[in-house]
Amino acid sequence: MPRERPTLEAVARRAGVSRATVSRVVNGSPTVAEPIQRAVRQAVAELGYVPNLAARSLVTQRTDSIALILPESASRVFSDDQFFPGIVHGVSQELEEADKQLVLLMAGSAAGHDRVERYATARHVDGVLFASMHGADPLPGMLARMGIPVVCSGRPFGRSTVPYVDVDHIGGVSRAVRHLLDSGRTRIATIAGPQDMVAGVDRLAGYREALADSGRRSIVAVGDFTRESGAVAMRQLLADDPALDAVFVASDLMAHGALRTLREAGRRVPDDVAVIGFDDIELARYTDPPLTTVRQPILEIGRRMARQLLRLAAGEQIEQAVVLPTELVLRDSA
Amino acid sequence: MPRERPTLEAVARRAGVSRATVSRVVNGSPTVAEPIQRAVRQAVAELGYVPNLAARSLVTQRTDSIALILPESASRVFSDDQFFPGIVHGVSQELEEADKQLVLLMAGSAAGHDRVERYATARHVDGVLFASMHGADPLPGMLARMGIPVVCSGRPFGRSTVPYVDVDHIGGVSRAVRHLLDSGRTRIATIAGPQDMVAGVDRLAGYREALADSGRRSIVAVGDFTRESGAVAMRQLLADDPALDAVFVASDLMAHGALRTLREAGRRVPDDVAVIGFDDIELARYTDPPLTTVRQPILEIGRRMARQLLRLAAGEQIEQAVVLPTELVLRDSA
Repeated sequence: MPRERPTLEAVARRAGVSRATVSRVVNGSPTVAEPIQRAVRQAVAELGYVPNLAARSLVTQRTDSIALILPESASRVFSDDQFFPGIVHGVSQELEEADKQLVLLMAGSAAGHDRVERYATARHVDGVLFASMHGADPLPGMLARMGIPVVCSGRPFGRSTVPYVDVDHIGGVSRAVRHLLDSGRTRIATIAGPQDMVAGVDRLAGYREALADSGRRSIVAVGDFTRESGAVAMRQLLADDPALDAVFVASDLMAHGALRTLREAGRRVPDDVAVIGFDDIELARYTDPPLTTVRQPILEIGRRMARQLLRLAAGEQIEQAVVLPTELVLRDSA
Repeated sequence: MPRERPTLEAVARRAGVSRATVSRVVNGSPTVAEPIQRAVRQAVAELGYVPNLAARSLVTQRTDSIALILPESASRVFSDDQFFPGIVHGVSQELEEADKQLVLLMAGSAAGHDRVERYATARHVDGVLFASMHGADPLPGMLARMGIPVVCSGRPFGRSTVPYVDVDHIGGVSRAVRHLLDSGRTRIATIAGPQDMVAGVDRLAGYREALADSGRRSIVAVGDFTRESGAVAMRQLLADDPALDAVFVASDLMAHGALRTLREAGRRVPDDVAVIGFDDIELARYTDPPLTTVRQPILEIGRRMARQLLRLAAGEQIEQAVVLPTELVLRDSA
């Protein structure tokens, strides 16, 4: 970086505008006419001018940045799941409209978790979004008590009062299980998600409730939302009950793994075994056969989280919970 | 946020340590013993102390943040492709080790592109990574000329001299096409990627070169790296040459779409038509049949980009190009 910095005055002289105009342009004000903005940016580029934004941040006490914390182990976050990328996408769309920067922090390791805590409490950001948590993470509540705006995806475990955006897991799963019962299936198994996540717990609860209503017994294996765990869990279910005729799988990715196991075991889908997933990611339209699944609006979860946080950061009162609807999408697998 | 800020002295008194120790802890120095770190953080939390990091940034002239620019239209970046998530994952792993923050910027729209330019030239970040570009984007070169450390994924179009990390597209595709020829295929088509991206251009060049060596004629359809475009392109190829017996597809996701089209058209894979993809994302192990594909080390691309940028930001000389190897992974589709 250059040691001797050109001044704001030099840029103003070069561009033939006032210092105030230069300041407005480099601070990103939209009120300056486009040709003048271009002239100023040209002068900034030619002189290598570096605006003193750290000083500005001292004055305004705003960073115009929002942190999104992905607390999964980094290797899982972007494995092949569409949930986290979808959340990132939704959040970034909304922040782009609000002209805020998205700072992505991984809190998978203990060290990472620690770093997130330092970064957020140091007020490098105007607010913090948490995308899906394992167990009862104390960090969101701690940040919120320090006055930092916080919004979570998914109802937090325990007694946290941090605002969140979630979907109607139980309603969606109930519709899926009822669809299987209505089409005459009698031995309906499930591949549940991780039981230290609300999405895993609630989808299993939905399955158990709907089955209990029908008087059928539950047949459960637990995966971790990855394809491989779905394949393994399906093998276990077939060993536990070779006569099972349907399976509700708590994510599309696990359902993809389960479909491979069923194919390898010579079971036809849906003739021998009906399969229903959860998520409705793009993959669901390309499996063989195309997957019947419970749709959750992943992109919209991200957008709503960002909107809630921006409202909170602006000092507005917001809802403690926003719960978005789910729907059963019928294709060929059930 | 609290109006009256507790002082560093107050935190030091509460924690029973020196001001210098408090300062080291809030600035994230790893040299402070864990129990003392805990005591300081406890005091910070109890008092709601806010370290004056903006002031620190004024002194050090470093932001400890790196921007990753995703210049695709936002809706494509996270659609279902594993390339961009893989890059984000690799970059974040490497930056986590270096204790740097990852700032994610979308430059899909013209406004977004503009915002990225403002943000980077305002030195909110220590350096900028560009993940895959369409056409000859002038932004990386412009930032580099202003003295901002820049590294791109993929060889830039045109005469840019910005450092980049890429893979051996042409070598990988040549091995794929030779494998098809060696196994007796005679009518080998391709589904190419977008021709305004180097990955699209180079993979098509690799196909044409390998076929030209064999004296066979090329049969080409162009997709945009999405599943749907692969399905559409495969229909077009079958119409153009119903007797084709193999297809090299420039991405696994397009190959997944092509497999669905072949299934719908009653063609068996690999008996009637052999299929080879490119990427080796997890999906490739779960398609029916499992996909033979050219593996590129996506995670490693992200890690190397980050490492090159950190070296550049530290004032080191770095290689103009790092080109990582690709390999043919044999499964059942070819």
